[in-house]
Amino acid sequence: MATLTLPQEVPSPTQDSETLRKAFEGWGTDENTVIQVLGHRNATQRKIIRDTYQELYNQSLIDSLRSELSGDFRRAVVLWAYDPAERDARLVKKALNSKKIGLDELKVIVEISCASSPHHLLAVRKCYCSLYECSLEEDIILDAPPSLRKILVGLVSSFRFDGAVVDLDVATDEASKLQEAIALKQLDQDIVVWILSTRNPFQLKATFESYHHNFGNHIYEDIKDYGNDMLASLVNIVIRCILSPEKHFAEVIKFATAGWGTDENSLTRVIVSRAEIDLMKVREAYLEMYKTSLDYVVKDDTSGDYRAFLMALLGQ
Amino acid sequence: MATLTLPQEVPSPTQDSETLRKAFEGWGTDENTVIQVLGHRNATQRKIIRDTYQELYNQSLIDSLRSELSGDFRRAVVLWAYDPAERDARLVKKALNSKKIGLDELKVIVEISCASSPHHLLAVRKCYCSLYECSLEEDIILDAPPSLRKILVGLVSSFRFDGAVVDLDVATDEASKLQEAIALKQLDQDIVVWILSTRNPFQLKATFESYHHNFGNHIYEDIKDYGNDMLASLVNIVIRCILSPEKHFAEVIKFATAGWGTDENSLTRVIVSRAEIDLMKVREAYLEMYKTSLDYVVKDDTSGDYRAFLMALLGQ
Repeated sequence: MATLTLPQEVPSPTQDSETLRKAFEGWGTDENTVIQVLGHRNATQRKIIRDTYQELYNQSLIDSLRSELSGDFRRAVVLWAYDPAERDARLVKKALNSKKIGLDELKVIVEISCASSPHHLLAVRKCYCSLYECSLEEDIILDAPPSLRKILVGLVSSFRFDGAVVDLDVATDEASKLQEAIALKQLDQDIVVWILSTRNPFQLKATFESYHHNFGNHIYEDIKDYGNDMLASLVNIVIRCILSPEKHFAEVIKFATAGWGTDENSLTRVIVSRAEIDLMKVREAYLEMYKTSLDYVVKDDTSGDYRAFLMALLGQ
Repeated sequence: MATLTLPQEVPSPTQDSETLRKAFEGWGTDENTVIQVLGHRNATQRKIIRDTYQELYNQSLIDSLRSELSGDFRRAVVLWAYDPAERDARLVKKALNSKKIGLDELKVIVEISCASSPHHLLAVRKCYCSLYECSLEEDIILDAPPSLRKILVGLVSSFRFDGAVVDLDVATDEASKLQEAIALKQLDQDIVVWILSTRNPFQLKATFESYHHNFGNHIYEDIKDYGNDMLASLVNIVIRCILSPEKHFAEVIKFATAGWGTDENSLTRVIVSRAEIDLMKVREAYLEMYKTSLDYVVKDDTSGDYRAFLMALLGQ
């Protein structure tokens, strides 16, 4: 359910590198060519292009992109050019380095741990260690708001089973445990962290269904009743990312494009990180939830090369 | 610092497979040949032999070994024949499936998370998921003694930075936090679990040194004062495995061979799992700690093919 489109005949990595190099040459940069090449290559192809470019010109493609492009367009293309694990490791580091770390910044951590494959999460952790010489967990403990450290460390440390194995008795039992923790307003209990961070998504969906069936409300409705509580809000993002990542990402785009300004960082993050995964489903969810086309909103809120690049990733 | 020895000219995987197949043929099994071949091949070579054997005879080498060998010898050779990550995943599962799970059973989990590389630990977790269709953490939460679940989940979920980066201020600060938790007899505090499970071994050694310097005692001495407390004992094994894995393993062999009987499971685990890593250092530590040769003790406590196999792994 990706939106990324590849040409029927993909040029060789050498041809692509030469085309990009040519686009960088001279006074101006031929941004359109950059979009035509990189905006229509998958992660494996981009990796080979990076390697080939480095070999041919003894320079990193990322560095060339950084020096040739600018603004939101540069940021989006550079993120896209990275290996997905490195991209996410850098996004997480940036979030943790923010002056004020709120839920908006921390969403990326939840997305990587609850709406990505367990193998991708491990790759991000490995990459984080290589880039920053410490574990991702250490930086979370250092930088994240105290009330969120425990759940975030649990989430990023998880390696969930990657299959549809569900035990309904466990679902019933753990729904009760969650209900108890919510009633006591103790979402930082070990058991809550364990359930949310070790169970596979299918098991968790069964648990949330069991919660709804046995206690009347959806679990996120009960947690919302908490009011202004960062941990409760984070847990709701976790639940949303597990239950329906596409709705979560549709919502992020909605918020990023609502009102006068645009939150380009969030918009870029969603389009770049999901174009090869489930952006088609995000598009459908968006239409269903907001009765508007996602493509229209993105087009309307952006301009120039940045817009052209996002539209390319959206398959247009 | 491995003890494993390889022949100067290693036969091809096909030759090795044929030699093994021949050793299995007829009425008896030629155990000596099994030892001569498998007892002198490293993990990569054994993997290729497994693959080649499977291809040549349409049968798994592990199954052949299981049906041809017996007793402690079989158990040791089969464990050795597995891929190290699969071996450890199976050892952990066996520990968690024990009728009575005590510290002896759980040592293997601490060893894998505190005395192995972070990459090996991840490989074990991946393998555990593939073999048992659930995460290792889920089984720990289900089966381990309640007081140990939190620390064990933290330990197996860790992915420590794999380098000698030390911050002495952090060491001083965290030594104080550990001292406080020990004084309060609250080793299950989040901060204790975080320190022990996210910091790299070099950082942790600095923290333990700082503890000694600032509070007079070694940290494990203060924890020992707790008395009969499973969590305290487990934390001491963690500390031992981080400070000096070779002393920990020497101690395990000492206990396994002490008194009249022999704990073959523990003896096999140490020799098989460390022969390619640091068994030479374990041997030196053993001599220093107990003024006896480890090789002598192993020889004295075992017999027959089992003894011959362990001695082969010890490089004799």
